[in-house]
Amino acid sequence: MVGDNEAELLARVGLSRLIEPGDRIVNQVINHIGAQELFTWLKTGSSKTPPGFEHDPRWEKITDNWRARLPTLNPHRDLATMANLNGKVLIPGHPGWPEKLNDLGDQSPLCLWVRGSIEPLQYPSVAFVGSRDSTGYGRRVTIEMTHGVAEQGFIIISGGAFGIDATAHRAMLDRGDPTVVFTAGGVDRFYPQSHTQLFRNAIAEGGAVVSEVPPGSAPMRHRFLMRNRLIAALGLGVIVVEAAWRSGALNTARHAWELLRPVGAVPGPITSMASAGCHRLIREGQAVMVTDAKEIVELIGPIKDHPENTTSQPGLLDGLDPQAARVLEALPLKATTTLDRIVHVSGMATQAVMEGLGILQLAGKVHQVEGQWKRLT
Amino acid sequence: MVGDNEAELLARVGLSRLIEPGDRIVNQVINHIGAQELFTWLKTGSSKTPPGFEHDPRWEKITDNWRARLPTLNPHRDLATMANLNGKVLIPGHPGWPEKLNDLGDQSPLCLWVRGSIEPLQYPSVAFVGSRDSTGYGRRVTIEMTHGVAEQGFIIISGGAFGIDATAHRAMLDRGDPTVVFTAGGVDRFYPQSHTQLFRNAIAEGGAVVSEVPPGSAPMRHRFLMRNRLIAALGLGVIVVEAAWRSGALNTARHAWELLRPVGAVPGPITSMASAGCHRLIREGQAVMVTDAKEIVELIGPIKDHPENTTSQPGLLDGLDPQAARVLEALPLKATTTLDRIVHVSGMATQAVMEGLGILQLAGKVHQVEGQWKRLT
Repeated sequence: MVGDNEAELLARVGLSRLIEPGDRIVNQVINHIGAQELFTWLKTGSSKTPPGFEHDPRWEKITDNWRARLPTLNPHRDLATMANLNGKVLIPGHPGWPEKLNDLGDQSPLCLWVRGSIEPLQYPSVAFVGSRDSTGYGRRVTIEMTHGVAEQGFIIISGGAFGIDATAHRAMLDRGDPTVVFTAGGVDRFYPQSHTQLFRNAIAEGGAVVSEVPPGSAPMRHRFLMRNRLIAALGLGVIVVEAAWRSGALNTARHAWELLRPVGAVPGPITSMASAGCHRLIREGQAVMVTDAKEIVELIGPIKDHPENTTSQPGLLDGLDPQAARVLEALPLKATTTLDRIVHVSGMATQAVMEGLGILQLAGKVHQVEGQWKRLT
Repeated sequence: MVGDNEAELLARVGLSRLIEPGDRIVNQVINHIGAQELFTWLKTGSSKTPPGFEHDPRWEKITDNWRARLPTLNPHRDLATMANLNGKVLIPGHPGWPEKLNDLGDQSPLCLWVRGSIEPLQYPSVAFVGSRDSTGYGRRVTIEMTHGVAEQGFIIISGGAFGIDATAHRAMLDRGDPTVVFTAGGVDRFYPQSHTQLFRNAIAEGGAVVSEVPPGSAPMRHRFLMRNRLIAALGLGVIVVEAAWRSGALNTARHAWELLRPVGAVPGPITSMASAGCHRLIREGQAVMVTDAKEIVELIGPIKDHPENTTSQPGLLDGLDPQAARVLEALPLKATTTLDRIVHVSGMATQAVMEGLGILQLAGKVHQVEGQWKRLT
């Protein structure tokens, strides 16, 4: 998957191999001189300091950090690895790039390594995060709440960890809904290993496993913390179901709070350490207490308030005949549907819907199975 | 127990027999013409309307309501009944009258019928209220929290009901601390009957059973709701431990909120109906979430912020030699103590403490048991 701008893709793939996630100075330099220029600079081992950073000690630190990684650098090989995994690499400007990540400013990811479908990255989503040491209570609540939120049209994203994360992903898979797993290591090595099947199912069921670090990268502490900001940025809001007093989930909540995304926290028994972090967030005013799916949707705002996140994304409908685009929007994300239903949902005439479906079929965006219609993208 | 102003006492005792609790118009008329004038008016069956209420239809309603009760009216008998119960009747202006109840404005009680000690009505107190259908979780939390709050010097008051109320009272009795039970019926008939021993213990352990309705009155729904306002007004704050979506405890919380008293609510499992009311209060901003005793004291403010509620009340120390008053303040509320300890606590010279104790002993306010000192009031 090489975009219009292959040089930009190669530069960002290369940079993501050299540099650790969330490096503010790297993003600042890129904003200044561009990713390709920076990559060339680093690749050739130039010790020259980019203009504007002459007196910035952080620049020297970066060049120190990447030097050891230079000899093994091979963006073409990384792209080939992704092709073998049937994966894709997204970069800013790519039509599939989730614009919401740009809210991260100078902590934006250089690129996204994606296995599975890239479309769910455009869907309105809610992040459910929580304790690895979840309780039966927390898991039960996660299932109930994610189902309720999914019924309102949102997809659920999380971090693929034990406990609440895995419960949230599985709850979506049980519904046949897509779910996006943000992983802290490379998308070729699933972590934790015992969730291999979960990750595979996420990919198989129309969802995705996403990382900002290249294949082969180990999940490391700072990568987990940085990964959390992606979850916070992609979700329209973050719900913390259970979290100990100190918990990675609180870090995700903090990122969301800084991004002005709504944060909800689920109360629990005060005798449960697994709820202490949630109570802390609520008491400190960094989260709103939520006790059911209805309150979560109230907090996030209903789907209609998030048109920018629906399939009307320019990335997905770009270049489409407006009539066909409107038909595509009326198709459910995963399920098959009837012509009558599309007519009903789209509010278009039957003839117009049929014309739209014809265009979409030719464009490879829908197909017909036993008289029912289904999206292909 | 007849105060300085016997006529006022008899009038208020009589009025409390005629009129239901919390009647705003009665308080308004009393503010206008006085309790004695109103009582005489009603007693003589006068149909005259008090000045200022000529066009107030509520006045007529009141006179209608009391008429059936007139024949059995006998304030002297009610006072004798209380004397037999070893009880007291407090009226506004009495040195033992809890001034905090005056915050109720035109819903102030006419008088208080008290069995047990009247002093705890002056102590800084926290109200713990909650569901009759409490869970094991709620009761466990109540015990832990009330103990923690009591350790900070507060006493606990409640309504004597099944569930959270009874648990809170018992937790205090287990510590040997006074507790005040506000009951919705007369103090001669304990309700619920199965709490007879609990009420007796509250009286025996230096606490009190208090009502604003005269002996013989049945606990009725509107009396429960009115009783709740007394709990809210006397407490420096109200803590709701468990409450269903509709619960009497929410009524108490509402009264406290209207009185600008801090209200705390304890979260619980969202799957527990017994916590739904608490979550509601928190979400609606009518309560602060509290998860331990420390947070409750933080909400209410520590004892030192409530000097008006300590034993330095003018009512209790009135007319006392300042030196003796300071000694009395240094005595624990219930426990016996040594001279050395009083010297330590009071920060006074041993000689001065001994003189103070002498004055207090003569005034019948302390006595000596086996070389230890103990309050009598």
